[in-house]
Amino acid sequence: MCQLLGMNANTPTDVMFSFTGLATRAAEHKDGFGIAFFEDKGLRLFVDPQSALDSPVAEMVRRYPIKSDNVIAHIRKATQGHVALENCHPFVRELWGRYWVFAHNGDLKDFHPRLHGAFRPVGSTDSERAFCWLMQELAKAHAGVPTIDELSRTLRELLPAPHAHGTFNLLLSNGQALWAHGSTRLYWLQRRHPFGRARLADEDLSVDFGALTTPNDRVAVVATEPLTADESWQPFAAGELRVFVGGEPAGRASG
Amino acid sequence: MCQLLGMNANTPTDVMFSFTGLATRAAEHKDGFGIAFFEDKGLRLFVDPQSALDSPVAEMVRRYPIKSDNVIAHIRKATQGHVALENCHPFVRELWGRYWVFAHNGDLKDFHPRLHGAFRPVGSTDSERAFCWLMQELAKAHAGVPTIDELSRTLRELLPAPHAHGTFNLLLSNGQALWAHGSTRLYWLQRRHPFGRARLADEDLSVDFGALTTPNDRVAVVATEPLTADESWQPFAAGELRVFVGGEPAGRASG
Repeated sequence: MCQLLGMNANTPTDVMFSFTGLATRAAEHKDGFGIAFFEDKGLRLFVDPQSALDSPVAEMVRRYPIKSDNVIAHIRKATQGHVALENCHPFVRELWGRYWVFAHNGDLKDFHPRLHGAFRPVGSTDSERAFCWLMQELAKAHAGVPTIDELSRTLRELLPAPHAHGTFNLLLSNGQALWAHGSTRLYWLQRRHPFGRARLADEDLSVDFGALTTPNDRVAVVATEPLTADESWQPFAAGELRVFVGGEPAGRASG
Repeated sequence: MCQLLGMNANTPTDVMFSFTGLATRAAEHKDGFGIAFFEDKGLRLFVDPQSALDSPVAEMVRRYPIKSDNVIAHIRKATQGHVALENCHPFVRELWGRYWVFAHNGDLKDFHPRLHGAFRPVGSTDSERAFCWLMQELAKAHAGVPTIDELSRTLRELLPAPHAHGTFNLLLSNGQALWAHGSTRLYWLQRRHPFGRARLADEDLSVDFGALTTPNDRVAVVATEPLTADESWQPFAAGELRVFVGGEPAGRASG
């Protein structure tokens, strides 16, 4: 299994604190890591088949305050697919002139959908196969970039099929919104005014968000396990899809 | 205009020396940089709208010896498209379960081909538009990954159309080969046994490749301007397409 981290904000925000929290769990999840940062439509993707504890790329990510409104990160413990660069999440494809980023925690047994469209896996994971199928089906369902609500409705129709094959906690973003689907383990919280202090659950590191933010800032964070010890993380129900836009939960898209 | 650097080798090789040479030219080409490293089918892509002289990402690339058999790098001086992450080269798309990487030096005037397929630009450069068109036409011409020779033949048919619109020096790779097309300024060389010393043209830095290589190593390097002062760089003719496989020029694909 793996661990996921997602962030959606209404103002470009760095995730150094949360990524540090995630990376402390890389001792167990040592088979690679990846993190994708949207800056408007542009995307930075850092992947490395090394552990996030040892990787010079992860070291740079922990130190360089890249500000982004949508972030998806992943640390990998291989289940399907060997340890290799092409099997590191997040995966990226382009559709309708937008990049789409996907990361998965879980394990899909015998999910081999027919891939007859323009999206093929490069690596050998069940996760990338599921992502390619999702992109193919989204491309069939809409002629151009639909609204976020329309995308959520289509995803709500599509997600049960792969989910029936196993554990399917996932994060998806096109830079406009962050979609998060809970299967077995996924939590979220929103940080907003008045911002307080938070302390990492796994490491003696705390941050005073009040000193780093303005009263208008809104940040939603999604993670496999609560990253902080003193904030109120809310669990996803099994099969629950949530959408975050501008740091706000954009209504429950499915239950 | 911009500057290109490409590397194709028969054994995973780092490009720290050549990238350092390229980055010294970033004072003039300050509108972003990017570098893509293939590791087998996997890909690392680093892009930053900052200059390669200032970017912490470039700093990491100069220090972290990422070994790759196909590398494409680019430093940008914006002509079309504003300075933004989504306009940084190289660009990446997936086709037939392989990543394809493209970088361009030049300026295409009024090249607005019909993009009716699965590849759309995310940014606003003429370069990404030309890349999407090339991918669309490759996808139409072949049902699956063709041989390198077949790809070279198809590219030879396709490249004159965009080239008619302006300057079109380009590098393209799918991890199996490096294609390089000369328009106005492009040079290449091969390093092989007996390896000697080389000194950067723009900076007082030299390297003894003999100490870093084995007698079987073959490395081909392509660049906008010769990167070293004491090696024999060969110019591309206008409209010349060359293909490099395993560090060897794989026959002249067109003249």
